[in-house]
Amino acid sequence: MISKNQIRFIRALHAKKGRESHRLFLCEGSKGVLEVIAGSYEVLQVFAFQEWIDENAAAVSAHKPVPEPVLLSEMERITALSTPSPALAVVRMKEHSLPAEAAPDGLTLVLDDIQDPGNLGTIIRIADWFGIRRIVCSPGTAELYNPKVIQATMGSFMRVEVVYGEISAFLSLTGLPANIFGTFLSGKNIYEAELSSNAVIIVGNESRGISEAAEKFVTDKITIPSYALDKKERGHAESLNAAIATAIVCAELRRRSHV
Amino acid sequence: MISKNQIRFIRALHAKKGRESHRLFLCEGSKGVLEVIAGSYEVLQVFAFQEWIDENAAAVSAHKPVPEPVLLSEMERITALSTPSPALAVVRMKEHSLPAEAAPDGLTLVLDDIQDPGNLGTIIRIADWFGIRRIVCSPGTAELYNPKVIQATMGSFMRVEVVYGEISAFLSLTGLPANIFGTFLSGKNIYEAELSSNAVIIVGNESRGISEAAEKFVTDKITIPSYALDKKERGHAESLNAAIATAIVCAELRRRSHV
Repeated sequence: MISKNQIRFIRALHAKKGRESHRLFLCEGSKGVLEVIAGSYEVLQVFAFQEWIDENAAAVSAHKPVPEPVLLSEMERITALSTPSPALAVVRMKEHSLPAEAAPDGLTLVLDDIQDPGNLGTIIRIADWFGIRRIVCSPGTAELYNPKVIQATMGSFMRVEVVYGEISAFLSLTGLPANIFGTFLSGKNIYEAELSSNAVIIVGNESRGISEAAEKFVTDKITIPSYALDKKERGHAESLNAAIATAIVCAELRRRSHV
Repeated sequence: MISKNQIRFIRALHAKKGRESHRLFLCEGSKGVLEVIAGSYEVLQVFAFQEWIDENAAAVSAHKPVPEPVLLSEMERITALSTPSPALAVVRMKEHSLPAEAAPDGLTLVLDDIQDPGNLGTIIRIADWFGIRRIVCSPGTAELYNPKVIQATMGSFMRVEVVYGEISAFLSLTGLPANIFGTFLSGKNIYEAELSSNAVIIVGNESRGISEAAEKFVTDKITIPSYALDKKERGHAESLNAAIATAIVCAELRRRSHV
Protein backbone atom coordinates (compact mmCIF):
# COMPACT_ATOMS: atom_id res chain seq x y z
CA MET A 1 0.00 0.00 0.00
CA ILE A 2 1.38 3.35 -1.01
CA SER A 3 0.06 6.65 0.28
CA LYS A 4 -1.15 9.57 -1.82
CA ASN A 5 1.71 11.62 -0.51
CA GLN A 6 4.22 9.01 -1.61
CA ILE A 7 2.64 8.87 -5.06
CA ARG A 8 2.83 12.64 -5.34
CA PHE A 9 6.43 12.62 -4.19
CA ILE A 10 7.53 9.96 -6.69
CA ARG A 11 5.66 11.58 -9.54
CA ALA A 12 7.52 14.81 -8.81
CA LEU A 13 10.70 12.90 -9.67
CA HIS A 14 9.42 12.32 -13.22
CA ALA A 15 10.29 15.96 -13.91
CA LYS A 16 13.75 17.50 -13.93
CA LYS A 17 12.63 20.24 -11.53
CA GLY A 18 11.53 17.69 -8.93
CA ARG A 19 14.70 15.65 -9.33
CA GLU A 20 16.91 18.69 -8.94
CA SER A 21 15.17 20.03 -5.87
CA HIS A 22 15.21 16.66 -4.06
CA ARG A 23 18.52 15.46 -5.58
CA LEU A 24 16.80 12.11 -6.16
CA PHE A 25 15.95 10.09 -9.27
CA LEU A 26 14.12 6.90 -10.25
CA CYS A 27 15.60 3.64 -11.46
CA GLU A 28 13.12 1.10 -12.85
CA GLY A 29 13.13 -2.41 -14.25
CA SER A 30 13.89 -5.69 -12.55
CA LYS A 31 17.54 -5.88 -13.52
CA GLY A 32 18.19 -2.17 -13.03
CA VAL A 33 16.77 -2.16 -9.51
CA LEU A 34 18.72 -5.27 -8.49
CA GLU A 35 21.91 -3.66 -9.80
CA VAL A 36 21.32 -0.31 -8.15
CA ILE A 37 20.63 -1.78 -4.70
CA ALA A 38 23.83 -3.82 -4.99
CA GLY A 39 25.84 -0.84 -6.23
CA SER A 40 27.38 2.27 -4.75
CA TYR A 41 24.40 4.61 -5.11
CA GLU A 42 22.30 5.29 -2.02
CA VAL A 43 18.84 3.74 -2.51
CA LEU A 44 16.14 5.33 -0.34
CA GLN A 45 13.07 3.31 -1.26
CA VAL A 46 12.12 0.33 -3.40
CA PHE A 47 8.55 -0.41 -4.53
CA ALA A 48 7.93 -3.76 -6.16
CA PHE A 49 5.34 -6.43 -6.88
CA GLN A 50 5.12 -9.05 -4.12
CA GLU A 51 5.98 -11.73 -6.68
CA TRP A 52 9.20 -9.92 -7.59
CA ILE A 53 10.12 -9.48 -3.91
CA ASP A 54 9.61 -13.22 -3.33
CA GLU A 55 11.59 -14.21 -6.42
CA ASN A 56 14.49 -11.97 -5.49
CA ALA A 57 14.36 -12.50 -1.74
CA ALA A 58 17.99 -13.52 -1.50
CA ALA A 59 19.25 -10.52 -3.47
CA VAL A 60 17.09 -7.90 -1.81
CA SER A 61 17.41 -9.11 1.76
CA ALA A 62 21.15 -8.42 1.74
CA HIS A 63 20.54 -4.74 1.15
CA LYS A 64 18.55 -1.94 2.65
CA PRO A 65 15.92 -0.68 2.23
CA VAL A 66 13.35 -3.46 2.45
CA PRO A 67 11.15 -3.31 -0.69
CA GLU A 68 7.57 -2.19 -0.16
CA PRO A 69 5.03 -4.35 -2.01
CA VAL A 70 2.72 -2.52 -4.41
CA LEU A 71 -0.09 -3.60 -6.71
CA LEU A 72 0.01 -3.14 -10.48
CA SER A 73 -2.56 -0.34 -10.17
CA GLU A 74 -0.24 1.45 -7.75
CA MET A 75 2.85 0.90 -9.89
CA GLU A 76 0.98 2.38 -12.83
CA ARG A 77 0.58 5.58 -10.83
CA ILE A 78 4.25 5.97 -9.95
CA THR A 79 6.13 4.63 -12.98
CA ALA A 80 7.78 6.98 -15.47
CA LEU A 81 7.75 4.20 -18.10
CA SER A 82 4.97 3.64 -20.61
CA THR A 83 4.67 0.04 -19.38
CA PRO A 84 5.26 -0.44 -15.65
CA SER A 85 8.09 -2.75 -14.62
CA PRO A 86 7.99 -4.96 -11.51
CA ALA A 87 10.29 -2.74 -9.44
CA LEU A 88 11.08 0.93 -8.94
CA ALA A 89 13.82 2.46 -6.79
CA VAL A 90 14.21 6.00 -5.46
CA VAL A 91 17.92 6.79 -5.58
CA ARG A 92 20.12 9.67 -4.43
CA MET A 93 22.02 11.52 -7.16
CA LYS A 94 25.78 11.60 -7.03
CA GLU A 95 27.38 14.98 -7.34
CA HIS A 96 29.75 15.05 -10.27
CA SER A 97 31.60 18.13 -11.38
CA LEU A 98 34.21 18.85 -14.00
CA PRO A 99 37.56 17.43 -13.04
CA ALA A 100 40.24 19.92 -12.07
CA GLU A 101 42.86 17.73 -13.70
CA ALA A 102 43.03 15.77 -16.89
CA ALA A 103 41.98 12.14 -16.67
CA PRO A 104 44.56 9.44 -16.35
CA ASP A 105 45.47 7.60 -19.53
CA GLY A 106 42.62 6.39 -21.62
CA LEU A 107 39.69 7.48 -23.66
CA THR A 108 37.34 10.28 -22.63
CA LEU A 109 34.13 11.14 -24.47
CA VAL A 110 33.02 14.76 -24.66
CA LEU A 111 29.36 15.29 -25.59
CA ASP A 112 28.59 18.60 -27.24
CA ASP A 113 24.82 19.02 -26.69
CA ILE A 114 23.55 15.48 -27.18
CA GLN A 115 19.88 16.28 -26.67
CA ASP A 116 18.08 13.00 -27.14
CA PRO A 117 17.83 11.06 -23.84
CA GLY A 118 17.92 7.74 -25.71
CA ASN A 119 21.15 8.74 -27.44
CA LEU A 120 22.78 9.80 -24.16
CA GLY A 121 21.80 6.55 -22.45
CA THR A 122 23.03 4.50 -25.40
CA ILE A 123 26.36 6.36 -25.45
CA ILE A 124 26.86 5.64 -21.73
CA ARG A 125 26.22 1.94 -22.44
CA ILE A 126 28.73 2.04 -25.32
CA ALA A 127 31.31 3.69 -23.06
CA ASP A 128 30.85 0.94 -20.47
CA TRP A 129 31.24 -1.76 -23.14
CA PHE A 130 34.43 -0.22 -24.49
CA GLY A 131 35.99 0.51 -21.11
CA ILE A 132 35.67 4.29 -21.18
CA ARG A 133 35.59 5.62 -17.64
CA ARG A 134 34.52 9.20 -18.09
CA ILE A 135 32.07 11.25 -20.17
CA VAL A 136 32.13 15.06 -20.05
CA CYS A 137 28.81 16.66 -21.09
CA SER A 138 28.11 20.23 -22.14
CA PRO A 139 25.36 21.96 -20.12
CA GLY A 140 23.02 21.54 -23.13
CA THR A 141 23.32 17.75 -23.08
CA ALA A 142 20.31 15.72 -21.85
CA GLU A 143 20.16 15.18 -18.08
CA LEU A 144 21.79 11.98 -16.81
CA TYR A 145 18.98 11.31 -14.34
CA ASN A 146 16.12 11.60 -16.86
CA PRO A 147 14.26 8.25 -16.60
CA LYS A 148 14.69 7.66 -20.35
CA VAL A 149 18.46 8.08 -20.03
CA ILE A 150 18.69 5.78 -17.00
CA GLN A 151 16.57 3.20 -18.83
CA ALA A 152 18.67 3.32 -22.02
CA THR A 153 21.95 2.87 -20.09
CA MET A 154 20.80 -0.62 -18.98
CA GLY A 155 22.69 -0.14 -15.72
CA SER A 156 25.84 1.36 -17.25
CA PHE A 157 25.21 4.72 -15.54
CA MET A 158 26.56 3.07 -12.39
CA ARG A 159 29.94 2.31 -13.96
CA VAL A 160 30.76 5.36 -16.07
CA GLU A 161 31.45 8.76 -14.53
CA VAL A 162 29.25 11.35 -16.27
CA VAL A 163 30.09 14.98 -15.46
CA TYR A 164 28.59 18.26 -16.70
CA GLY A 165 30.31 21.55 -17.38
CA GLU A 166 31.62 23.88 -20.04
CA ILE A 167 33.48 21.62 -22.42
CA SER A 168 35.88 24.36 -23.44
CA ALA A 169 37.02 24.51 -19.79
CA PHE A 170 37.63 20.76 -19.82
CA LEU A 171 39.38 20.86 -23.19
CA SER A 172 41.67 23.61 -21.88
CA LEU A 173 43.03 21.47 -19.05
CA THR A 174 46.74 20.78 -19.22
CA GLY A 175 47.78 17.19 -19.42
CA LEU A 176 45.03 16.08 -21.78
CA PRO A 177 45.93 13.45 -24.38
CA ALA A 178 47.50 14.93 -27.52
CA ASN A 179 44.75 13.63 -29.80
CA ILE A 180 41.34 15.28 -29.71
CA PHE A 181 39.18 13.51 -32.29
CA GLY A 182 35.98 14.93 -33.69
CA THR A 183 33.67 13.29 -36.22
CA PHE A 184 32.80 15.43 -39.22
CA LEU A 185 31.16 14.62 -42.55
CA SER A 186 34.31 15.79 -44.30
CA GLY A 187 37.14 14.58 -42.10
CA LYS A 188 39.82 12.00 -42.74
CA ASN A 189 38.57 8.44 -43.34
CA ILE A 190 38.90 6.78 -39.92
CA TYR A 191 40.29 3.65 -41.54
CA GLU A 192 43.16 5.67 -43.00
CA ALA A 193 43.69 8.05 -40.07
CA GLU A 194 46.18 7.45 -37.31
CA LEU A 195 44.20 6.68 -34.19
CA SER A 196 45.22 6.42 -30.57
CA SER A 197 43.36 4.94 -27.65
CA ASN A 198 44.78 7.59 -25.37
CA ALA A 199 42.57 10.35 -26.67
CA VAL A 200 39.48 12.50 -26.32
CA ILE A 201 36.55 11.97 -28.71
CA ILE A 202 34.12 14.87 -29.17
CA VAL A 203 30.59 13.86 -30.20
CA GLY A 204 28.53 16.61 -31.84
CA ASN A 205 24.86 17.52 -31.50
CA GLU A 206 22.34 15.41 -33.44
CA SER A 207 21.54 18.10 -35.99
CA ARG A 208 24.20 20.81 -35.69
CA GLY A 209 27.24 18.60 -35.18
CA ILE A 210 30.25 19.88 -33.25
CA SER A 211 30.03 23.53 -32.19
CA GLU A 212 32.60 26.08 -33.26
CA ALA A 213 33.69 26.52 -29.65
CA ALA A 214 34.56 22.81 -29.42
CA GLU A 215 35.89 22.47 -32.97
CA LYS A 216 38.81 24.79 -32.07
CA PHE A 217 40.19 22.05 -29.83
CA VAL A 218 39.92 19.24 -32.39
CA THR A 219 43.35 18.03 -33.53
CA ASP A 220 42.08 15.27 -35.86
CA LYS A 221 38.90 15.57 -37.91
CA ILE A 222 37.71 12.09 -38.79
CA THR A 223 34.83 10.70 -40.79
CA ILE A 224 33.11 7.32 -41.12
CA PRO A 225 33.00 6.41 -44.81
CA SER A 226 29.60 5.69 -46.30
CA TYR A 227 29.13 2.96 -48.85
CA ALA A 228 25.79 4.18 -50.14
CA LEU A 229 25.00 2.87 -53.60
CA ASP A 230 24.52 5.10 -56.65
CA LYS A 231 24.66 8.20 -54.52
CA LYS A 232 23.62 10.54 -57.25
CA GLU A 233 20.65 8.56 -58.48
CA ARG A 234 19.14 7.32 -55.27
CA GLY A 235 20.11 9.87 -52.74
CA HIS A 236 21.50 8.43 -49.53
CA ALA A 237 21.56 8.84 -45.79
CA GLU A 238 23.24 12.14 -45.03
CA SER A 239 24.60 11.11 -41.69
CA LEU A 240 24.59 8.51 -38.97
CA ASN A 241 22.83 8.85 -35.63
CA ALA A 242 25.18 10.36 -33.01
CA ALA A 243 25.27 7.22 -30.84
CA ILE A 244 25.90 5.02 -33.88
CA ALA A 245 28.83 7.17 -34.99
CA THR A 246 30.25 7.11 -31.46
CA ALA A 247 30.06 3.32 -31.37
CA ILE A 248 31.81 2.87 -34.71
CA VAL A 249 34.63 5.23 -33.69
CA CYS A 250 35.08 3.59 -30.27
CA ALA A 251 35.08 0.11 -31.84
CA GLU A 252 37.72 1.12 -34.38
CA LEU A 253 39.94 2.72 -31.74
CA ARG A 254 39.76 -0.43 -29.62
CA ARG A 255 40.35 -2.68 -32.63
CA ARG A 256 43.51 -0.78 -33.50
CA SER A 257 44.98 -0.92 -30.05
CA HIS A 258 44.41 -4.68 -29.84
CA VAL A 259 45.61 -5.75 -33.29
CA MET B 1 -8.26 25.35 -41.98
CA ILE B 2 -8.68 21.67 -41.32
CA SER B 3 -12.05 20.02 -40.72
CA LYS B 4 -12.97 17.85 -37.75
CA ASN B 5 -13.35 14.89 -40.08
CA GLN B 6 -9.83 15.40 -41.44
CA ILE B 7 -8.44 15.63 -37.90
CA ARG B 8 -10.22 12.41 -36.96
CA PHE B 9 -8.94 10.71 -40.11
CA ILE B 10 -5.31 11.70 -39.55
CA ARG B 11 -5.42 10.78 -35.89
CA ALA B 12 -6.64 7.33 -36.90
CA LEU B 13 -3.28 6.95 -38.70
CA HIS B 14 -1.44 7.33 -35.38
CA ALA B 15 -2.51 3.75 -34.64
CA LYS B 16 -1.44 0.62 -36.45
CA LYS B 17 -5.06 -0.45 -36.92
CA GLY B 18 -5.93 2.79 -38.72
CA ARG B 19 -2.81 2.62 -40.88
CA GLU B 20 -3.49 -0.96 -41.91
CA SER B 21 -7.12 -0.41 -42.78
CA HIS B 22 -6.41 2.71 -44.88
CA ARG B 23 -2.98 1.53 -46.13
CA LEU B 24 -1.73 5.04 -45.33
CA PHE B 25 0.88 6.45 -42.95
CA LEU B 26 2.24 9.81 -41.77
CA CYS B 27 5.58 11.38 -42.55
CA GLU B 28 6.48 14.47 -40.50
CA GLY B 29 9.29 16.99 -40.25
CA SER B 30 10.43 19.60 -42.72
CA LYS B 31 13.15 17.53 -44.37
CA GLY B 32 11.17 14.30 -44.32
CA VAL B 33 8.15 15.87 -46.01
CA LEU B 34 10.28 17.54 -48.69
CA GLU B 35 11.97 14.21 -49.40
CA VAL B 36 8.78 12.18 -49.50
CA ILE B 37 7.01 14.50 -51.94
CA ALA B 38 10.07 14.36 -54.23
CA GLY B 39 10.33 10.58 -53.94
CA SER B 40 8.55 7.54 -55.30
CA TYR B 41 5.88 7.21 -52.62
CA GLU B 42 2.38 8.50 -53.42
CA VAL B 43 1.64 11.52 -51.20
CA LEU B 44 -2.07 12.19 -50.75
CA GLN B 45 -2.07 15.29 -48.56
CA VAL B 46 0.38 17.73 -47.03
CA PHE B 47 -0.46 20.01 -44.10
CA ALA B 48 2.05 22.72 -43.24
CA PHE B 49 2.55 26.10 -41.64
CA GLN B 50 2.11 28.96 -44.14
CA GLU B 51 5.65 30.09 -43.39
CA TRP B 52 7.01 26.66 -44.36
CA ILE B 53 4.95 26.63 -47.57
CA ASP B 54 6.35 30.06 -48.52
CA GLU B 55 9.93 29.10 -47.69
CA ASN B 56 9.71 25.91 -49.73
CA ALA B 57 7.56 27.26 -52.55
CA ALA B 58 9.95 26.14 -55.27
CA ALA B 59 10.26 22.61 -53.92
CA VAL B 60 6.60 22.03 -53.19
CA SER B 61 5.16 23.64 -56.35
CA ALA B 62 6.85 21.03 -58.53
CA HIS B 63 4.90 18.25 -56.85
CA LYS B 64 1.33 17.37 -56.08
CA PRO B 65 -0.54 17.71 -53.83
CA VAL B 66 -0.57 21.43 -52.98
CA PRO B 67 0.11 21.80 -49.24
CA GLU B 68 -2.79 22.98 -47.12
CA PRO B 69 -1.84 25.68 -44.62
CA VAL B 70 -2.59 24.92 -40.97
CA LEU B 71 -2.08 26.82 -37.73
CA LEU B 72 0.10 25.57 -34.89
CA SER B 73 -3.05 24.77 -32.88
CA GLU B 74 -4.28 22.59 -35.75
CA MET B 75 -0.92 20.88 -36.23
CA GLU B 76 -0.89 20.05 -32.53
CA ARG B 77 -4.13 18.14 -33.03
CA ILE B 78 -2.87 16.01 -35.93
CA THR B 79 0.81 15.40 -35.18
CA ALA B 80 2.02 12.06 -33.86
CA LEU B 81 5.18 13.73 -32.51
CA SER B 82 5.53 15.12 -29.01
CA THR B 83 6.57 18.47 -30.53
CA PRO B 84 4.79 19.38 -33.78
CA SER B 85 6.96 19.92 -36.85
CA PRO B 86 6.14 22.46 -39.59
CA ALA B 87 4.87 19.88 -42.09
CA LEU B 88 2.99 16.58 -42.14
CA ALA B 89 2.30 14.35 -45.15
CA VAL B 90 -0.27 11.57 -45.58
CA VAL B 91 1.43 8.88 -47.66
CA ARG B 92 0.31 5.62 -49.27
CA MET B 93 2.09 2.48 -48.05
CA LYS B 94 4.02 0.38 -50.51
CA GLU B 95 3.25 -3.29 -50.52
CA HIS B 96 6.37 -5.30 -49.86
CA SER B 97 6.41 -9.04 -49.49
CA LEU B 98 9.12 -11.62 -49.06
CA PRO B 99 11.12 -12.07 -52.23
CA ALA B 100 10.63 -15.34 -54.09
CA GLU B 101 14.30 -15.38 -55.02
CA ALA B 102 17.48 -14.60 -53.21
CA ALA B 103 18.74 -11.04 -53.50
CA PRO B 104 21.44 -10.18 -56.00
CA ASP B 105 24.93 -9.89 -54.61
CA GLY B 106 25.33 -7.83 -51.55
CA LEU B 107 24.44 -7.58 -47.91
CA THR B 108 20.98 -8.33 -46.56
CA LEU B 109 19.91 -7.70 -42.98
CA VAL B 110 17.45 -10.06 -41.31
CA LEU B 111 15.74 -8.70 -38.19
CA ASP B 112 14.56 -11.31 -35.74
CA ASP B 113 11.92 -9.48 -33.68
CA ILE B 114 13.46 -6.04 -33.30
CA GLN B 115 10.70 -4.56 -31.18
CA ASP B 116 11.79 -1.03 -30.41
CA PRO B 117 10.63 1.41 -33.13
CA GLY B 118 13.67 3.63 -32.56
CA ASN B 119 15.99 0.66 -33.09
CA LEU B 120 14.23 -0.36 -36.30
CA GLY B 121 14.38 3.18 -37.69
CA THR B 122 18.03 3.52 -36.74
CA ILE B 123 18.89 0.18 -38.38
CA ILE B 124 17.19 1.32 -41.62
CA ARG B 125 19.30 4.49 -41.51
CA ILE B 126 22.45 2.41 -40.95
CA ALA B 127 21.53 0.18 -43.91
CA ASP B 128 21.14 3.22 -46.14
CA TRP B 129 24.51 4.60 -45.02
CA PHE B 130 26.28 1.33 -45.70
CA GLY B 131 24.60 0.61 -49.03
CA ILE B 132 22.40 -2.27 -47.91
CA ARG B 133 19.37 -2.51 -50.18
CA ARG B 134 17.14 -4.93 -48.38
CA ILE B 135 15.99 -5.71 -44.84
CA VAL B 136 13.87 -8.79 -44.10
CA CYS B 137 11.84 -8.49 -40.88
CA SER B 138 10.18 -11.23 -38.85
CA PRO B 139 6.44 -10.68 -38.22
CA GLY B 140 7.30 -9.74 -34.61
CA THR B 141 9.49 -6.82 -35.68
CA ALA B 142 8.19 -3.26 -35.13
CA GLU B 143 6.00 -1.90 -37.94
CA LEU B 144 7.84 0.08 -40.62
CA TYR B 145 5.10 2.71 -40.84
CA ASN B 146 4.95 3.45 -37.10
CA PRO B 147 5.59 7.23 -36.86
CA LYS B 148 8.52 6.64 -34.49
CA VAL B 149 10.17 4.32 -37.02
CA ILE B 150 9.63 6.72 -39.92
CA GLN B 151 11.03 9.55 -37.79
CA ALA B 152 14.14 7.61 -36.75
CA THR B 153 14.97 6.62 -40.35
CA MET B 154 15.53 10.30 -41.24
CA GLY B 155 14.23 9.60 -44.75
CA SER B 156 16.11 6.34 -45.26
CA PHE B 157 12.84 4.34 -45.36
CA MET B 158 12.49 5.64 -48.93
CA ARG B 159 15.75 4.07 -50.07
CA VAL B 160 15.88 0.69 -48.34
CA GLU B 161 13.43 -2.10 -49.17
CA VAL B 162 11.92 -3.38 -45.91
CA VAL B 163 9.88 -6.58 -46.24
CA TYR B 164 8.07 -8.69 -43.63
CA GLY B 165 7.64 -12.44 -43.51
CA GLU B 166 8.76 -15.63 -41.82
CA ILE B 167 12.53 -15.35 -41.73
CA SER B 168 13.00 -19.11 -41.88
CA ALA B 169 11.23 -19.00 -45.28
CA PHE B 170 13.64 -16.32 -46.47
CA LEU B 171 16.68 -18.12 -45.07
CA SER B 172 15.59 -21.31 -46.88
CA LEU B 173 15.73 -19.67 -50.32
CA THR B 174 18.24 -21.17 -52.71
CA GLY B 175 20.90 -18.86 -54.04
CA LEU B 176 21.48 -17.02 -50.77
CA PRO B 177 25.06 -15.95 -50.00
CA ALA B 178 27.09 -18.70 -48.34
CA ASN B 179 27.75 -16.67 -45.20
CA ILE B 180 24.92 -16.12 -42.73
CA PHE B 181 26.35 -14.10 -39.85
CA GLY B 182 24.70 -13.82 -36.47
CA THR B 183 25.92 -11.79 -33.50
CA PHE B 184 26.18 -13.72 -30.24
CA LEU B 185 27.83 -12.92 -26.93
CA SER B 186 30.05 -15.98 -27.37
CA GLY B 187 30.87 -16.04 -31.07
CA LYS B 188 34.15 -15.56 -32.87
CA ASN B 189 35.79 -12.15 -32.42
CA ILE B 190 34.70 -10.22 -35.55
CA TYR B 191 38.19 -8.82 -35.92
CA GLU B 192 39.59 -12.34 -36.21
CA ALA B 193 36.72 -13.89 -38.19
CA GLU B 194 36.66 -14.15 -41.95
CA LEU B 195 34.04 -11.74 -43.18
CA SER B 196 32.44 -11.28 -46.56
CA SER B 197 30.37 -8.39 -47.87
CA ASN B 198 28.23 -10.82 -49.86
CA ALA B 199 26.34 -12.13 -46.88
CA VAL B 200 23.28 -12.11 -44.68
CA ILE B 201 23.47 -10.64 -41.18
CA ILE B 202 20.86 -11.75 -38.64
CA VAL B 203 20.12 -9.25 -35.88
CA GLY B 204 18.53 -10.69 -32.74
CA ASN B 205 15.80 -9.37 -30.47
CA GLU B 206 16.80 -6.70 -27.91
CA SER B 207 16.52 -9.00 -24.90
CA ARG B 208 16.29 -12.58 -26.19
CA GLY B 209 18.84 -12.34 -29.00
CA ILE B 210 18.58 -14.60 -32.05
CA SER B 211 15.78 -17.19 -31.87
CA GLU B 212 16.51 -20.90 -32.15
CA ALA B 213 14.57 -21.03 -35.42
CA ALA B 214 16.92 -18.46 -36.97
CA GLU B 215 20.08 -19.72 -35.26
CA LYS B 216 19.86 -22.96 -37.25
CA PHE B 217 20.68 -21.00 -40.40
CA VAL B 218 23.70 -19.16 -38.97
CA THR B 219 26.96 -20.30 -40.56
CA ASP B 220 29.23 -17.91 -38.64
CA LYS B 221 28.63 -16.87 -35.05
CA ILE B 222 30.44 -13.61 -34.42
CA THR B 223 30.90 -11.36 -31.41
CA ILE B 224 31.99 -7.77 -30.86
CA PRO B 225 34.77 -7.79 -28.27
CA SER B 226 34.23 -5.69 -25.16
CA TYR B 227 37.08 -3.78 -23.59
CA ALA B 228 35.40 -3.24 -20.25
CA LEU B 229 37.86 -2.49 -17.48
CA ASP B 230 38.32 -4.68 -14.43
CA LYS B 231 35.37 -6.82 -15.38
CA LYS B 232 35.26 -8.75 -12.17
CA GLU B 233 35.48 -5.83 -9.81
CA ARG B 234 33.30 -3.28 -11.48
CA GLY B 235 30.82 -5.30 -13.46
CA HIS B 236 30.36 -4.17 -17.03
CA ALA B 237 27.79 -3.73 -19.77
CA GLU B 238 26.45 -7.16 -20.65
CA SER B 239 25.60 -6.33 -24.21
CA LEU B 240 25.32 -3.60 -26.78
CA ASN B 241 22.04 -2.16 -28.06
CA ALA B 242 20.85 -4.08 -31.16
CA ALA B 243 21.23 -1.11 -33.52
CA ILE B 244 24.71 -0.36 -32.16
CA ALA B 245 25.85 -3.95 -32.71
CA THR B 246 24.42 -3.89 -36.25
CA ALA B 247 26.33 -0.69 -37.03
CA ILE B 248 29.65 -2.04 -35.76
CA VAL B 249 29.27 -5.27 -37.78
CA CYS B 250 28.25 -3.41 -40.98
CA ALA B 251 31.13 -0.95 -40.60
CA GLU B 252 33.64 -3.77 -40.14
CA LEU B 253 32.30 -5.69 -43.17
CA ARG B 254 32.58 -2.58 -45.34
CA ARG B 255 36.05 -1.76 -43.99
CA ARG B 256 37.31 -5.24 -44.90
CA SER B 257 35.97 -5.11 -48.43
CA HIS B 258 37.57 -1.72 -49.05
CA VAL B 259 40.97 -2.26 -47.50
